[in-house]
Amino acid sequence: MNPFYILRLTSVIQIVVSAFMIIPAGIAAYYGETVEFYSFLGTIFLIWIFAAFYIYFTRKAPNRVLSSRDGFFFVTSSWILAAGFGALPVYFSGAIPSYTDAYFEIMSGFTTTGASILTNIEALPRSMLFWRSLTHWLGGMGIVVLVVALIPLLGVGGTKLVGAESPGPSVDKFTPKIRNNALILWIIYLGLSVLETILLMIGGMDLFDASTHTFGTMATGGFSPKAASVGHYNSAYIDAIITIFMVLAGCNFALYFKAFRGKIGEVIRDGEFKVYIGLFLIVSVLIAANLFLSGDYESPGKAFRFSSFQTASIITTTGYATADFELWPNFSKVLLFFLMFIGGCSGSTGGGIKVIRIVTMAKVAMNNIKYMLHPRGVFNLKVGKNTIRKEVVYTISGFFALYIFTILGTTIIVSTCGADIETSLTAALATVGNIGPGFGKIGPSENYFFFPAYVKWFLSLAMMAGRLELFTVFALLTPQFWKK
Amino acid sequence: MNPFYILRLTSVIQIVVSAFMIIPAGIAAYYGETVEFYSFLGTIFLIWIFAAFYIYFTRKAPNRVLSSRDGFFFVTSSWILAAGFGALPVYFSGAIPSYTDAYFEIMSGFTTTGASILTNIEALPRSMLFWRSLTHWLGGMGIVVLVVALIPLLGVGGTKLVGAESPGPSVDKFTPKIRNNALILWIIYLGLSVLETILLMIGGMDLFDASTHTFGTMATGGFSPKAASVGHYNSAYIDAIITIFMVLAGCNFALYFKAFRGKIGEVIRDGEFKVYIGLFLIVSVLIAANLFLSGDYESPGKAFRFSSFQTASIITTTGYATADFELWPNFSKVLLFFLMFIGGCSGSTGGGIKVIRIVTMAKVAMNNIKYMLHPRGVFNLKVGKNTIRKEVVYTISGFFALYIFTILGTTIIVSTCGADIETSLTAALATVGNIGPGFGKIGPSENYFFFPAYVKWFLSLAMMAGRLELFTVFALLTPQFWKK
Repeated sequence: MNPFYILRLTSVIQIVVSAFMIIPAGIAAYYGETVEFYSFLGTIFLIWIFAAFYIYFTRKAPNRVLSSRDGFFFVTSSWILAAGFGALPVYFSGAIPSYTDAYFEIMSGFTTTGASILTNIEALPRSMLFWRSLTHWLGGMGIVVLVVALIPLLGVGGTKLVGAESPGPSVDKFTPKIRNNALILWIIYLGLSVLETILLMIGGMDLFDASTHTFGTMATGGFSPKAASVGHYNSAYIDAIITIFMVLAGCNFALYFKAFRGKIGEVIRDGEFKVYIGLFLIVSVLIAANLFLSGDYESPGKAFRFSSFQTASIITTTGYATADFELWPNFSKVLLFFLMFIGGCSGSTGGGIKVIRIVTMAKVAMNNIKYMLHPRGVFNLKVGKNTIRKEVVYTISGFFALYIFTILGTTIIVSTCGADIETSLTAALATVGNIGPGFGKIGPSENYFFFPAYVKWFLSLAMMAGRLELFTVFALLTPQFWKK
Repeated sequence: MNPFYILRLTSVIQIVVSAFMIIPAGIAAYYGETVEFYSFLGTIFLIWIFAAFYIYFTRKAPNRVLSSRDGFFFVTSSWILAAGFGALPVYFSGAIPSYTDAYFEIMSGFTTTGASILTNIEALPRSMLFWRSLTHWLGGMGIVVLVVALIPLLGVGGTKLVGAESPGPSVDKFTPKIRNNALILWIIYLGLSVLETILLMIGGMDLFDASTHTFGTMATGGFSPKAASVGHYNSAYIDAIITIFMVLAGCNFALYFKAFRGKIGEVIRDGEFKVYIGLFLIVSVLIAANLFLSGDYESPGKAFRFSSFQTASIITTTGYATADFELWPNFSKVLLFFLMFIGGCSGSTGGGIKVIRIVTMAKVAMNNIKYMLHPRGVFNLKVGKNTIRKEVVYTISGFFALYIFTILGTTIIVSTCGADIETSLTAALATVGNIGPGFGKIGPSENYFFFPAYVKWFLSLAMMAGRLELFTVFALLTPQFWKK
């Protein structure tokens, strides 16, 4: 692996990011936000200088096929630099006066986390609010490509996405087929985004609010330009639309392929999809019952409106809120806490452990019990109709364990600043799982501003590690990675 | 499997339990606790009637070798009935006026958990306090036999205990070799118990206090006849002795075999032992530094005395306290919370996930990263000098996942009564992990009394499931188990 050559590709990604900055720059010009306009322009200029120099100095680099090691370095450095450059306009304009805070906020954007350090969201210029939300959408787009190009290396989800004839865990290069699939996925992502924006505008939002909320929904991000999040609109219609689109964004995008080909039956019988929808419905109903019976809402329907929104928001790792769930009864809070361990489906923009891994691990446990009862039996591990091979189970077990250890390690680091158990633990869950809000001092009506700088930097890395499926980032921390 | 035949064996275990009731009955007679004396006598009589009838009616049962299914049923029914009968004298005498509470307390004893519902411990008659602590010691004794007879079925620890030539995961019967090993382990358990009792008496305890605290230490239980737990004595010597014996009780008992044979080098190089001692020392020092720097204790030495005691108490899943760690700074609390996920060594009386499983899962994660970097490489999973086979890794992965799911499921059940996230989660960790105290409303200076009856019954089962390594109890909940 040659990091200098890989950074050439990384700098191309930064040019893509800079191209998207033209939109908020235009918004700044439209609303007369002069400082913001020049902050975007200056950043775009800086990125181009950086990229031009980089591409010039590495012009003699060999043009060869990427190895998996190259891929890890490329992906990780792309996210680190995108957040680094993406934070500049926010910092230059003074919208967020500390670079640490700006980096945290924009990394939270690109990783589709939605954890914020902003104490007064609505005081931000509109161009900055738009940029902040747009980073979600771009990050989600990046993830859509990742699930096709990188996830096959991780052994789960990818095979389903790129079809049964995919080379599986030994994919070692970006094939034309993969590029083609990525394009189709982007079209789906774009199509759903346009549809949601239109539906939100029908519900009374202006284009600005509708598009920023769509970015947060489709990327399962959670940034809202409103301090009260989606609760600001107090509209059952808007709640319903966003609930539905959060659930859609948390589905495996490969299912949309199948649905468009008319294979609805296959979609409904998909093992992961069934569990995901089942969990969403069961938890929504349980929380609705709890909220109604404890008198939080006057009718079961209203209780269900708020419970289903919050359930969708947490299981998909979006993080929007229509109510301060920190004030809900403890049973409801514990159910949301439980969902923080699950996450969306594989091949979605959602974060967390992912439903398919949870299902697989549950079946591993079940298989062991069967094996103890019938030591001579042979037990296949099936999720839906697909048999999961032993090597894949091994990989998923490693991921599951690494996830739990990462959560515990992050909890310890956060607590060094004096945060209590609930705050530290849910900050770890909410950042590594790319959810956004947690419980305790980082509840839905609060933010991450009070953490000291070193915790913010650490959590920025935690968001990135979680977003890039841990292995990608942890691989870079091993000495083996840097050996020739 | 024939449950009626197995219950014949189970009733023999109850006779053993009744035989041990003679000791607290004698104590009751000595201190003139008449009601308590007759409560023990009545219970002993009841057990004998039950056992006599049972053994008479199943006299024609075939005398055959036990299958693993028989073993699971035998072990689970033994613990359920031992707690059921063991709770009777406490209930009959009125020491604990509710049978639910008495059952919880005695199940907590037999499972070496140490979670208590007593609001005024010192008000209990001495015979009852002794019985309560004795159930720890008996439960620990039962576990010592289990780690030899049952754990090999579960694929970890057992092989190390019964030697490299053990048949491993396919052990299907109680061999004479296993019986012989169990005897040696009991002698070690008894020897260490006598030694600790003597050392505590040298420190000023009377025989009653010394023996009850020894029971709680060697079984990694945690019941103390004092409301302030070990903190009652306020003695650096007693703290040191109990710290050392807690650490000893949390070690793999197979290491004592080796140590007695003079193979000290092998003990020190043991992979699990190194991590266990390392974790104990690192966390003790970190907490000591945190306590000293935050001004909780006036000298580093005193801070280390309290931190090492509490660290040993939590990692070994004992649950004794010399300080109200609920009042410690958050970083120290989070470190203890983290240890609640670890537990003692395999082949010890400690509970929890166990160090060797944690180490194995960490290596599975590491191997996956290596595999991603070198897809054509072959990576063995080694803990210390021992290579862990793929089937065993599969079993450990299943256990690890089942443990996490059991914790989350128990957290949800506890929260149905309105308990907050911290209380519900640590109640789950403290019962399934057989620790005893947690955080929130079940901190070291509080107790489990306030929970409603259904939560107490559920947690009684959770303690048992955790103590019997989950699979044993979960197997009984599958339809496959009950098929012919």
